[in-house]
Amino acid sequence: MYLFSNVLGVFVFDDKLNKVDEILFKTFEDSQNKKNLIEKMKGRHKGLKEPDGNSIRKIMLYFKSENLLNEFYIKNLELTKFDTRNSVKNDLLLIHSTKSIGEIDKAIDLLVKRLREWYDIYNPEFSRSVDDHEKFVGEILEKEKDELLRQINVEATDSIGASFAPQDIEPIKSLARQICNLYQLRKAQFEYISALMDGLCPNLKAVCDVLVCAKLMEHAGSLKRLSEMPSSTIQVLGAEKALFRHIKTGAKPPRHGLIIAHPLIARAPEKMHGRIARALADKISIASRVDYFNGQFIGDKLRKELEEKYKQ
Amino acid sequence: MYLFSNVLGVFVFDDKLNKVDEILFKTFEDSQNKKNLIEKMKGRHKGLKEPDGNSIRKIMLYFKSENLLNEFYIKNLELTKFDTRNSVKNDLLLIHSTKSIGEIDKAIDLLVKRLREWYDIYNPEFSRSVDDHEKFVGEILEKEKDELLRQINVEATDSIGASFAPQDIEPIKSLARQICNLYQLRKAQFEYISALMDGLCPNLKAVCDVLVCAKLMEHAGSLKRLSEMPSSTIQVLGAEKALFRHIKTGAKPPRHGLIIAHPLIARAPEKMHGRIARALADKISIASRVDYFNGQFIGDKLRKELEEKYKQ
Repeated sequence: MYLFSNVLGVFVFDDKLNKVDEILFKTFEDSQNKKNLIEKMKGRHKGLKEPDGNSIRKIMLYFKSENLLNEFYIKNLELTKFDTRNSVKNDLLLIHSTKSIGEIDKAIDLLVKRLREWYDIYNPEFSRSVDDHEKFVGEILEKEKDELLRQINVEATDSIGASFAPQDIEPIKSLARQICNLYQLRKAQFEYISALMDGLCPNLKAVCDVLVCAKLMEHAGSLKRLSEMPSSTIQVLGAEKALFRHIKTGAKPPRHGLIIAHPLIARAPEKMHGRIARALADKISIASRVDYFNGQFIGDKLRKELEEKYKQ
Repeated sequence: MYLFSNVLGVFVFDDKLNKVDEILFKTFEDSQNKKNLIEKMKGRHKGLKEPDGNSIRKIMLYFKSENLLNEFYIKNLELTKFDTRNSVKNDLLLIHSTKSIGEIDKAIDLLVKRLREWYDIYNPEFSRSVDDHEKFVGEILEKEKDELLRQINVEATDSIGASFAPQDIEPIKSLARQICNLYQLRKAQFEYISALMDGLCPNLKAVCDVLVCAKLMEHAGSLKRLSEMPSSTIQVLGAEKALFRHIKTGAKPPRHGLIIAHPLIARAPEKMHGRIARALADKISIASRVDYFNGQFIGDKLRKELEEKYKQ
């Protein structure tokens, strides 16, 4: 007596390879509880064994009949759909929204540059006095040209900007309005990412802030893969070019990759960067493993250790 | 007696090069009516002549006194400001808004690609059934997943897209909403351009539609420069790379540049492209000259001639 199972169910064949018994899977739960059903079958029949190469070939012939083949097709399709549907984890959403922030930044850059050039012929003095793009966009939306010029102590009559008819200012303002909306969208996406992290990787978030954490996840591809990386890899993640140049030509190895954006490194003096990067990568590696295996929250402890060590 | 004029006014010096008479410019109008004031001065004194090299050098010494130098500075600054302020013509606005449409297109492209990838994990069947980006964005904003799937005859249970919590759909929808806004901004800018053209270059607009006209203006830099180009240049405007390859290597010369987007060429069979492009460039060249010199409206006549000739 042979025991055989596939996506359709659990089957028992006698020594002449005729089907004796079967338990068909009716739901996804059945497929997932395959083990229990095999045990059940073992309870019904004594002395069941795994088929060997020769008998497997003959058992396969049984499943070659047309209606079973069709069922195979349907069942496999269903299972694949089920798996595909359930393969979407929160880290995939996290990565998509991180990428989306990147694209929004690019779009803002493009449009702000255009806005500045265009607005320049209307009010060059103000445009040049404000470096921050977001502030610039906000102020030209809120105020009139005169007010903006007074703000930087230039009389409207002294301005070398052309005077525009209202219908010529409107398109500039509507461009500015859209850029403003994009800034708001960016903020909303950032908050969404931050909320996702609270559920997915609170420790990682605590250790390395939203932005660095999002970048690391994006680069690694998933939380699982990040948690599998040694801390030395995490340290230079994003600096692959420099790393391979080091391996190939013997140039200096990179001291840090994406994690350079972390405030602890960014604020530290140049010569400390390498040391802090190594310690930080250590903690990130620990945090990501704790997060992947749903461990307790130790992120604040890890962060505190780091900050105390590298206070100066 | 010598007559001398500069940005400050019109002056008369006697033979010993002492100042005898002066008319100072008080307003911008005076500066612009320089000729009239010179005539006036000529009426006051007989036998005025232009100073020669040697006397000019001595006259210059007169203007070297400190307070006059200061006035020079102020007057020059004012004149420059005035000129700068008035150098902004409508064709500059047209070019800026055309460029802005280009940037908006790029931004939309970036964001739509991200949106599609992100939305794909939620509802891949619908995303792939709609090729048009604008329609895609509009529909996912308006309808729920179920409705969208029914629309393409897929049952919601058959979809391989993951089921999302509302807080996970919201960021996708707000990205879509912003893209939708950008599409609207694009339309508004297009209308603005069209309105600008009615005043600036109605003939050009009639001959080659808003988009081609805007691109030609953008490429030429101004209406003046476009009107100065021979029609053969207009024909290959935008195909500089191919043109120089032709000159350098003897490869085939380009038959058309930007004007290929014109419906007359785009709709015509391949082998007619060159012929139509030449005729079209002719008419564009005529139209741009009429527009630059504010001639009558003959755009519809030009367009009609073209269309009748190349109807098939």
